[in-house]
Formats: sequence, C-alpha cells, structure tokens
Amino acid sequence: MGVLGAGQLGRMLALAGTPLDCRFVFVDPSPGAPAAALGQHIACEYTAPEGLAALAACDVVTYEFESVPVEAADALADRVPVFPPPAALRVAQDRLLEKSAFRDLGIATAPFEPVNSEAELAQAVLKLGLPAVLKTRRFGYDGKGQFVLNEPEDVPIAWAALLGAPSILEGFVHFERELSLLAARGRSGEIRFYPLVENQHERGILRKTVAPAAAVSAALQSGAELSATLILERLAYVGVLALELFQVESRLVANEIAPRVHNSGHFSIEGSRTSQFENHMRAILGLPLGDTATISPSCMLNLVGSLPESAAVLEVPDAHLHLYGKAARAGRKVGHITVRGATESELAERVAILEALPGVREAP
Amino acid sequence: MGVLGAGQLGRMLALAGTPLDCRFVFVDPSPGAPAAALGQHIACEYTAPEGLAALAACDVVTYEFESVPVEAADALADRVPVFPPPAALRVAQDRLLEKSAFRDLGIATAPFEPVNSEAELAQAVLKLGLPAVLKTRRFGYDGKGQFVLNEPEDVPIAWAALLGAPSILEGFVHFERELSLLAARGRSGEIRFYPLVENQHERGILRKTVAPAAAVSAALQSGAELSATLILERLAYVGVLALELFQVESRLVANEIAPRVHNSGHFSIEGSRTSQFENHMRAILGLPLGDTATISPSCMLNLVGSLPESAAVLEVPDAHLHLYGKAARAGRKVGHITVRGATESELAERVAILEALPGVREAP
Repeated sequence: MGVLGAGQLGRMLALAGTPLDCRFVFVDPSPGAPAAALGQHIACEYTAPEGLAALAACDVVTYEFESVPVEAADALADRVPVFPPPAALRVAQDRLLEKSAFRDLGIATAPFEPVNSEAELAQAVLKLGLPAVLKTRRFGYDGKGQFVLNEPEDVPIAWAALLGAPSILEGFVHFERELSLLAARGRSGEIRFYPLVENQHERGILRKTVAPAAAVSAALQSGAELSATLILERLAYVGVLALELFQVESRLVANEIAPRVHNSGHFSIEGSRTSQFENHMRAILGLPLGDTATISPSCMLNLVGSLPESAAVLEVPDAHLHLYGKAARAGRKVGHITVRGATESELAERVAILEALPGVREAP
Repeated sequence: MGVLGAGQLGRMLALAGTPLDCRFVFVDPSPGAPAAALGQHIACEYTAPEGLAALAACDVVTYEFESVPVEAADALADRVPVFPPPAALRVAQDRLLEKSAFRDLGIATAPFEPVNSEAELAQAVLKLGLPAVLKTRRFGYDGKGQFVLNEPEDVPIAWAALLGAPSILEGFVHFERELSLLAARGRSGEIRFYPLVENQHERGILRKTVAPAAAVSAALQSGAELSATLILERLAYVGVLALELFQVESRLVANEIAPRVHNSGHFSIEGSRTSQFENHMRAILGLPLGDTATISPSCMLNLVGSLPESAAVLEVPDAHLHLYGKAARAGRKVGHITVRGATESELAERVAILEALPGVREAP
C-alpha cells in the first residue's frame, strides 16, 4: 500500500491496514512524520521521482492529505490503481469546482460567485449580500484562507487579506450546527454510511465530534446519504469520503467534501463496529465493507497545541488516547481522545471530566 | 518499548501501543517476523549482546514469547524495568515450579509428581493412577512435549518419547471444558479481569474462543479471579496474564499460566472495551487500566496452516480479519478472525458461516 502523506491519518490507516496484511510505503517530505515508524518512509516531495517510483511499485496507492499535488496522483494513476480517484482530489482542492459539483448534482449549498479581482468581489457582494465569506479556491484548511465580510468597506481589506488569490465569495449560512457524514464506497460500488455526527470548531479547527449527532431525524440522515451518494457516484469514488454539512432548521447545506478519512470520523475507532480507517482499507483493497453501526454514544476530543497527562485521561472510564507522535505547537493537532458512554448522559459526564483536564483545552 | 520476540503478539502489542506514543524495538532471530514492520527489528538471538544493548536503551521492556531465555530477561532487569517480572517467566517456563506455585497458593490443580527417570515415572504412575499425562517441565507448548499414559506398559514408551527430559506426571483431569481468564495488573497494583472465555483446542492447538464463556456463574468467575489474584500478587506481576483452567462440574482446576498477552484474549480487540494488548501496554507503562467489559458476544477463530479468502470472511457481518504476515504452513498460526453478534444465537450463525469457509478449518 502506497500512501501520499505520512501524517496522523496515514498512521491510523497503517494501524487498521496491518491486520489486513498491508505493508506500507509512505511518501512525505517531513522527517519523523507520524506514520513513518509503521512502514517504509521516503522523505521527499510528493512529485519527486524517487517517491513516485516507490509508490508506482505498490499494489494500490491512496493519500491521506488532500493538498497532495494532483499531478502526482495523476502520474501514479497511469501506473497503479489510485483510490480515491485523482478526480476527487481535483474537485476537493478547488472550492469553485466543489461548489459547482454540488450545484450540478442538485445538492443544496450556499450561494457562491467566483472572484478573480477586487472588482469581481464588489460585484459578488452586491449579488449575494452581506455578511458573506471570501475563500481562496485552493489550499484553505482549518479556517485558513478565509475572510468574513460584514460591510461593503470590507471589500478591499478582504481582497488584500487573501493576497489576490483566485477565490469564491459564499453567502453566509446562519446555521444551527455543523454535521458531517462519513461514507465509504467499495470497488464493487457498495456504499455504507456512518450516522451523522456533530462537529464543534474553534478558530476554524475541529475540537469535538459527538457521534451520533443528537436529534437526527430519519429524513435528515437519508437526505445526507442521498447527497453523498450523488457525489460518490459522480466521482466513481472508492474509499472513505467525508461530507461536511451545515444544518439550517431542518435542512442541510453542503459545505465541502474531504476525499479521505476525516478527523470527524476518528470516533469510529472505538465508536463503530468498523472504523473509517478499516473501511477505507477494505474499500481500496476491493474487500467487502464493514458494519458502520455505532457501538455506543461516543465523543472525540481533539488535542490541539497541548497534551494532557495520559494517566489523567485514561482514569476516565472507557476513554482511549491516540497520540500522533508530534511535538506540541500552538494550533497543531497532536492527538485525540475518544470516550464512550452507555447513555448520552453518561457520555456527557465523562466528556465534562475530560474537558476539565489541563491540556485538553488549549490555552487561549 | 523494547520487546523480546516479534511474532504476532508483538505485532498486536505494537498496534495497541503506537496510539499511546510508544515506539518499538523488537529482538527476534527470525527475519521478516510479523512485528518487524512496526518498529526497529534487531534480528539476533535473545541473548546476543547487540539485542540486549538495544533493549537496555529502551524505557521499558516486555516479552511476547514465553520461551525467551530467563537469563536475557534477568540481565535486562538489572538495567531497565522489565514487565512482567522475569520471576513470572521463570515460573511459567517450568511446569514443576508452576504447579508447585498453584499448590502453595491453595489453587486447585491436577495432582502431580516430578519425574526424572523411568523409575520415578513408574512410581509416579502408582501414586497418581492412570490415565495420566507426562509433560516435560520446559519448552512445551501447543500440545508438544506431552504423552498420555493409559496403561502401565506405556511407562517406557512415554519416557522414551520425551527423550528423558526432566518432566512431571499429572493426574488426568476429566474436564467438561477449557476456560481461560485474562487478567491485567498495573504498576500501581490495580487489577482488572476479563470475563472467563471458553477455548476449544484441536491437536493441542487453540482453534476457537467463545467470549464470554456460556453459563458462567458468579461463583465460577469470582473463583477464577481469586486464583489469578493470588498468582499476580505472589509474582508482583505487571502486565496481562492468562490463567488456563479446566472446568470439572462446578469446580475449576488450574492448568497453566502464560505471562503475556494470550491467544485466548485476541477476541478482546473487537469484543472488549479495552483490548488485552492495550491493557498490557497501559499496565507496563504505569497508566490506569482500561474497562474490560464485553461489547457484545464474540468468537475468535484461529487460522492455522491455511487462509480463507479475505473477501469471504469480510462478507460476514461484523467479522474482522487479523493476518500475521506469515507464510501458511501446516500447524502454524497465520491469523485469526473475530466476529461479534448482538446475541449468542446471532453470533453462532455467523460462526457457522465462517467455519464452513474453505481455509478456515485446516485440512485434516
């Protein structure tokens, strides 16, 4: 199994894939990357010939990082099966393609306009109204590359803040909550869905996922599944895909897709009968997908920028710690905790204990 | 984390320990051993200086193989914490010490006599009666190094079969079933038990574990826990220990201990809130132990000597495959399957489907 990227997602993929007898080759420029100890690590750029040659010699290639250059994935796809397909990477890397795909498929999304100049931004503001969010088309993640415009005077500031990069302006969505749907599609076309989960972000970074999300109607779940199915089929997708959604009253508004295992699916290692990592492996290996049912209510807490005492975390009943082997640094995801409870209230008690531990909530 | 041995147990320890930020050094003479890809593998004898030096440089050392030379563990224990303590290895490696420990602690076990000559064997047969089992004191596993005596004429044959090795004769136990208890003891002295599981052997090799065992009374469970506690305390044990037991009517008869994670605990990866591998890691790292409660009824099927089609296994709902990266060879454990069911009858149906697959039951 060749993997573009050797971060924590690659690490957790390797932990899930090893029991299926996969051996891993990771290409990632960062020495000492989190997955490096679990396979062969080739420390070079994603497009470097030595990395591509090693990956092309694998039986199948995947990626754990959506900013992998599409050219690297395309070059590999000529020589070895690459899943998810590079087309999915291309769409996910460009907010304009992504939003256009939602619109073409009839999936509700925020109104948007492409913006390539300050003048176009001013026109788009007139068309969509304010507030609105200017986002670079490419390379935005964890809230980076975004600017919220509240009044017309913000136009030149926003345009300057994004350094004139090709962007889109999105109408502001006044949402009640953020949800995501993890879906897996196998090489046979088989599709499985996890239940919708609720995500809480802080400063653009995911902090907490509650799985399953509370108060999800059958209609809400099936609406999300329908949207995901349209995307999976359109992209001839193979692997796990995350669909990020806003809930507005009883409607869902698609925000973006991640063509890979996703932080909001980490709960599934302990919370689901088959984790997103195992299902991604099964999918790309052409194996039947595993049961996505929930074992018990779970909560995932990201550890961002600081680490708690491991012993304090593991004192909490049915809490499990996942450290990524990364040095703690402000704003950096260095691990996560998953905790389960027999009931939602037991879970809430355990989460409250964990959130009160020094190091679990990053200092402001 | 230093590990003596790099077999499948080492592999599963590494999969559980990596999320706790352990990095692994394995010493094992076998090139391409199952755990080798998950850490640094030093391919040398257990007593070789280069291996011992690398292990002594670790923060803590454990072993996954109970035939590790005690001298290696002792030499390391002078330089680095070694868990479980080498004393446990010494007892588990010698059936006479092991049985004597059971007797000294008041734990019911089969009557036994040490045997160092054919004459002593003849005397022991008179004392214990027949049938009886002659077992070498050391290096017996998976039914090797054993001989069942049914009549007095078997004495010279048995003695010759065991090549005159120091042995013990054990009275034959007419048991209803074989059970095992997995226990974990932390560095703080905290102890946790898994529920009793039922094991089925064929030709001396574990084939199947049902977890929890059916029809276990509270008295049976607590009797087993008491025996295990006595052993753990006597040995100042740290880590996971397996206690193998025979059930005779409503009584338990201790057979042997394994001072390590154990094949009959593999079910716990999917079947328990915390796996035996995670709890072994937590124990030896000095962390609080995790919840040992059962998630749902589970069955572990060993894959011995042959492998089924992965796709056929994974078609079965909530079945999970664990391959060890070993070439299939008669009598060799090459992987296992764990399957869960919401109820015992659902589990039994799934097990029946799996057992009917070509490759799951080794050809006779």
